[in-house]
Amino acid sequence: MSLADQVLQGSIRAAARLMRDIDDSRPQAIDELKQLYPHTGNAFIIGVTGPPGAGKSTLVDQLTASFRSRDKKVGVVAIDPTSPFTGGAILGDRIRMNRHSCDEGVFIRSLATRGSLGGLSRSTSDVALVLDALGMDIIIIETVGVGQDEVDIVKEAHTTCVVMVPGLGDDIQAIKAGILEIGDIFVVNKADRDGADRTARELSTMLDMRGATESDWSPQVLKTEAQRGIGMEELTDEIIKHREYFLTSGMIKLFLQERSQRHFMSILRDTLFNEVLSLIKESGALESIIKKLNEHNTDPYSAVEDIVANMIHGRRQTV
Amino acid sequence: MSLADQVLQGSIRAAARLMRDIDDSRPQAIDELKQLYPHTGNAFIIGVTGPPGAGKSTLVDQLTASFRSRDKKVGVVAIDPTSPFTGGAILGDRIRMNRHSCDEGVFIRSLATRGSLGGLSRSTSDVALVLDALGMDIIIIETVGVGQDEVDIVKEAHTTCVVMVPGLGDDIQAIKAGILEIGDIFVVNKADRDGADRTARELSTMLDMRGATESDWSPQVLKTEAQRGIGMEELTDEIIKHREYFLTSGMIKLFLQERSQRHFMSILRDTLFNEVLSLIKESGALESIIKKLNEHNTDPYSAVEDIVANMIHGRRQTV
Repeated sequence: MSLADQVLQGSIRAAARLMRDIDDSRPQAIDELKQLYPHTGNAFIIGVTGPPGAGKSTLVDQLTASFRSRDKKVGVVAIDPTSPFTGGAILGDRIRMNRHSCDEGVFIRSLATRGSLGGLSRSTSDVALVLDALGMDIIIIETVGVGQDEVDIVKEAHTTCVVMVPGLGDDIQAIKAGILEIGDIFVVNKADRDGADRTARELSTMLDMRGATESDWSPQVLKTEAQRGIGMEELTDEIIKHREYFLTSGMIKLFLQERSQRHFMSILRDTLFNEVLSLIKESGALESIIKKLNEHNTDPYSAVEDIVANMIHGRRQTV
Repeated sequence: MSLADQVLQGSIRAAARLMRDIDDSRPQAIDELKQLYPHTGNAFIIGVTGPPGAGKSTLVDQLTASFRSRDKKVGVVAIDPTSPFTGGAILGDRIRMNRHSCDEGVFIRSLATRGSLGGLSRSTSDVALVLDALGMDIIIIETVGVGQDEVDIVKEAHTTCVVMVPGLGDDIQAIKAGILEIGDIFVVNKADRDGADRTARELSTMLDMRGATESDWSPQVLKTEAQRGIGMEELTDEIIKHREYFLTSGMIKLFLQERSQRHFMSILRDTLFNEVLSLIKESGALESIIKKLNEHNTDPYSAVEDIVANMIHGRRQTV
């Protein structure tokens, strides 16, 4: 029985194995993902993003508990900062959410910010696909920070929660302005801290000013203290409310179409590069290019032009 | 006269024009960059990274002034968060460093976190190349936050300054651990705030613990108040000290070799994708793939497999 079949029958062991294959860029992982693809689209995906220090991990832990108490199976994809030195994820599954470790209805997977088959948003969507096929009702994707990578990652989510925290200083305004546009629900966490009300008020004001958008959903600003579990039921209710809006308004159809096109583009980009790289490695062309580059006998632009001219069928004559 | 020739003669107007062409992904920009390539490698590149709110822009402004007072021409590449809504950079050149706007020895360029010819690290290196060819002695690259993108960007720099700020909370420890390995100089900015000494001490301790690395440079932790110009001369001196270490220790040779290989890989990835995308757009294949994806008659993995099989010469039979 293929790994994909085992995943579809709910095998957690097979899912973990497939995720490792994805991490290790094993080509057979693609075949398994192809088999899973038609059986996915059932899970509801929640993105949790916000600056470092906002308490996202604790919030995700509490959300997991909250959805579990409502009898939902929960998968978590947590992006952890990678150590540029060791290449490994710094937090890692083990220290995350120990309290769910004996619960078969929870599957937690850490992704390191580097490595893996393609870019980070590609790995995230591949892993989410496996969790979806495994039968998770809810998938929570937690990002590291609030950069461009994170914006790309939360595009995978149906509902995006942006987590802020009081007192991050003024420069954060610029980030806020970008983040306003990706959030469906805003959370001011660590709401016992000074300035929580002000932060919530500022966010509301900025949201009011953002004017008309494509959707007629009005994002709310909620206050939580994830560490003490305060405000979590309200947040869970609001997420479910957004989910219903998403399903009944027909936005889901457009979302799914855009997502499959984005996946196609992302896989195309990775696959072309990996194929050509293997070919020029095997033929020895790569070695001779690197030698020429080191000896300043060519520049990277000209070297690429030669490769592309030789490798692509029907390439346009003028670049 | 080509734009490249004009840039090499110091034309700021031509440099700005070429950077626009890079932004707009105009194919002729590649030809100009090819011409510039052999004339570059003279500028010293400084990376400034750190979490949002650390005061990086102000610090870069002060560093610019400090190098100007030492008669160096300074180019700045500032990565600004992009509004996902408008696609434009949120800060933008205009509100940055007005005080240098009449100084011909300063060239400031904002890059938005999305768009442009390739990924962000690709655009950054292309723009830095133009500034280098223009005759800037110092190029400062300022990132938005501290994600993976930022780590890739600071790889372009000879000297990387990591800017921290007191009181960002505990979760920042994880980020710090990753950042320790990319910093040549550490700056605790806003050093008048509570906890500055503790943050500096913690950083020093973590640096001591990191043990032996490839290089025998020992990163220092400096305290600054960029807003009031305090500590800027010391920081400038330390950067110059690192520069001398870099040049005399022979690390520069390895650095340049790794950089040209990285550029080659990055340009190869972008060019392959862009070429194939144009070809399948022109032939109508893309349209029919998107139709099939929307009708669930294929999955993204299989669609990519078909394209790659058709487009790449000498493709391996087993993927």
